[in-house]
Amino acid sequence: MAIDYTFRLRQAHRSGQIARIAGAIADAEGLIGDIETINLTRRQSIREVTVECRDEHHANEIAEKLKETDGVTVLWCRNRALMKHEGGKLTIEPVRRVETVQQMRDVYTPGVAQACLAIADDAAKATDYTMIGRTVAICTNGTRVLGLGDIGPRASMPVMEGKAVFYRQFAGISAMPILIDTTDVDEFVATVERIAPTFGGIHLEDIDSPACFEIEERLIDALDMPVMHDDVHGTAVVTLAAALVGCRRADKKFEDVTVGQIGLGAAGWGIAALMVAAGAERVVASDPDESSHARAREHGIDITDYDELMQQADVVVATSGQPGLIEPDHIRENQIILALSNPEPEIDPMSALDAGAAFAADGSVVNNVLGYPGIFRGALLAGADSINTEMKVAAGHAIAALAEESELVPDVFDPQVHERVAEAVKEAAEASGAADADRAARGL
Amino acid sequence: MAIDYTFRLRQAHRSGQIARIAGAIADAEGLIGDIETINLTRRQSIREVTVECRDEHHANEIAEKLKETDGVTVLWCRNRALMKHEGGKLTIEPVRRVETVQQMRDVYTPGVAQACLAIADDAAKATDYTMIGRTVAICTNGTRVLGLGDIGPRASMPVMEGKAVFYRQFAGISAMPILIDTTDVDEFVATVERIAPTFGGIHLEDIDSPACFEIEERLIDALDMPVMHDDVHGTAVVTLAAALVGCRRADKKFEDVTVGQIGLGAAGWGIAALMVAAGAERVVASDPDESSHARAREHGIDITDYDELMQQADVVVATSGQPGLIEPDHIRENQIILALSNPEPEIDPMSALDAGAAFAADGSVVNNVLGYPGIFRGALLAGADSINTEMKVAAGHAIAALAEESELVPDVFDPQVHERVAEAVKEAAEASGAADADRAARGL
Repeated sequence: MAIDYTFRLRQAHRSGQIARIAGAIADAEGLIGDIETINLTRRQSIREVTVECRDEHHANEIAEKLKETDGVTVLWCRNRALMKHEGGKLTIEPVRRVETVQQMRDVYTPGVAQACLAIADDAAKATDYTMIGRTVAICTNGTRVLGLGDIGPRASMPVMEGKAVFYRQFAGISAMPILIDTTDVDEFVATVERIAPTFGGIHLEDIDSPACFEIEERLIDALDMPVMHDDVHGTAVVTLAAALVGCRRADKKFEDVTVGQIGLGAAGWGIAALMVAAGAERVVASDPDESSHARAREHGIDITDYDELMQQADVVVATSGQPGLIEPDHIRENQIILALSNPEPEIDPMSALDAGAAFAADGSVVNNVLGYPGIFRGALLAGADSINTEMKVAAGHAIAALAEESELVPDVFDPQVHERVAEAVKEAAEASGAADADRAARGL
Repeated sequence: MAIDYTFRLRQAHRSGQIARIAGAIADAEGLIGDIETINLTRRQSIREVTVECRDEHHANEIAEKLKETDGVTVLWCRNRALMKHEGGKLTIEPVRRVETVQQMRDVYTPGVAQACLAIADDAAKATDYTMIGRTVAICTNGTRVLGLGDIGPRASMPVMEGKAVFYRQFAGISAMPILIDTTDVDEFVATVERIAPTFGGIHLEDIDSPACFEIEERLIDALDMPVMHDDVHGTAVVTLAAALVGCRRADKKFEDVTVGQIGLGAAGWGIAALMVAAGAERVVASDPDESSHARAREHGIDITDYDELMQQADVVVATSGQPGLIEPDHIRENQIILALSNPEPEIDPMSALDAGAAFAADGSVVNNVLGYPGIFRGALLAGADSINTEMKVAAGHAIAALAEESELVPDVFDPQVHERVAEAVKEAAEASGAADADRAARGL
């Protein structure tokens, strides 16, 4: 795993100095990222140079090289991500500050009673007069965090805060991490059910399988609001988008292709099921764990083995967790290959293309941030009682439609993407009967 | 209950027009609040005039009077509090926006893993690298909301959001309302325990007694963090402050007085217990509900009846919920009377003063917003494992010390108040052994 270190350097302000610094870092095999000018006088400057390092030892080696460089003083060297996490990444803010007696009367006593009574009288008014309809809970027990595994609820908080940052920034949604200290399915479900009135939707995150399947199913049944496990369905939506773009580029009709899903963990199962729902001609899957087969068959996925799958599939999606699983000579001419395991894919995209693939990508293109903010925004705007298959398929098509010529998926920083996803999801909710205008988050 | 209505009026811009409008409102017995100028041309202006009304019918009567007024058009008339509640009162925001690839690397993949691993390695780092140490959950089941009673969790949200607004504005704390959909004590406690890792402290709010006592006790035992039921202890702190100020004005030493507490509900019990802890010579209490007596006696409160109490007490605090309970001839010369029941006190302060009281106030002076933001800020700054009696007494003294000559308690909008309360609570936490520097929310 790459770790960014930031070096704060005081250096002579003269031509060639940055080149010398870059040379020293290259000598120590560091990859330069941002260079920021902190201070500048006629004779010297202070810069923060960020370098991708293998580990702390590597960072120290680079620091040594920099210290030996003419005209350079290393003021400090720090783990950049830790520096940027100081104090946390979220804050809860008033929409309007309270600075006068009238404002106190408006939002606290006696005015607040008006809003309480309106909601007591008609529960749907909660969407109008509180944050509820524009707020999502990101619920986790931290049992399967990124590539880190079971690190527990507290240690998973930085991931949840990061997800919440994107909710606000890309979809205008307030998202609150909720760390749930249990690995028991019943306890997890009961906890979320009891706090659910606080929120307009429930985003499940980083829960280990198979517990995640039962938790999601039971919460969908119990709650009359959007519930989605992002590692299953968010990943599936973005992967569907990548597959649709791949088909477009390779001149295949999605309705005519066989999709082969290698691996039926949380993500793999979600992807395969969504490919069926999205109308692929056929979806086959392989997984050595037979306990995953029944669930797949229930959703119209045919079980096969790896060799058969590679023979039959026009689009291959791999979430096996096995680096290098797909060898170049397994690939058939004109296949679309999405080798998604992180940090090492089942096959390097360049090797896949060399072996004849029409299209190839690794997990770096499947960024969930493309999906979940717009999906929940669309659901909340519709007042949807769930996030159904139609809504997920619509989100996949919306993302695919926005991919530029040269990209497999659109740029996550393009605000248009999230707006379009939200619109598509809202329309699909309305068309599929999941929407309820009374609960729609007006003005979100 | 007074309800503020805002009338948007188009009116001729000429001398005397506001007087005519004010006259019309006075004729209809409305109390004028803010007048805001929305638009102004040479010939006419648009103003929003806010009027305290008895009810909607009264507001309509005032609108009729205004329509009859020369040069006035009523554009609309709206319930002002509902208008100011639209969209809710809180939003969850990123501390730093993510706008570049480097920023994405810092706060999401791959950087976020650095923060996760640091916390997995040392749980106390959660205070440094997440929002946890500077975030409080405001937990309620909505069973006893303001003067509204049991309106349930959702309808109580506006109150919780209001409390959270003050946390941020007065103490820099992120506070998240958590609505808990159960009236079962075990379920409530289990739910809060499971989500507790998300937060640095637990603020309990508007939970009916006696359930609130057991819930608070069990959560204090179970959790290694500040837990406080504001309706019990926040009210007690601010009432202690008012009593201390009253004694100062009446030249009584608090250590020498007998405090008489009328009513042993949640607030009354909390007040009486804190008076004991703060060192009053003696605390007596009366309550017709005998089930409240044992808990009081355990905390050093003597049980008596109302007549004896009025005879013995130098400071009388009433939270009986019985308007007019204290008749003027019950009052002894030089007593301090805090008649706190809302909206109608046990005795009007003016009547109490006329009857010989040295000092008298009603519930309007006991604003909890003076207490809880600074109390939790102090506890979080100290990394405290609880909010103990010493901390509450310190908060009461800090508030009392800041009351201006003419006031019973300080102005809630004075930022100094909350800072001083926080300092006093932090110092008391340190002096009483509740503090833990490793968990202190540095930079809060």
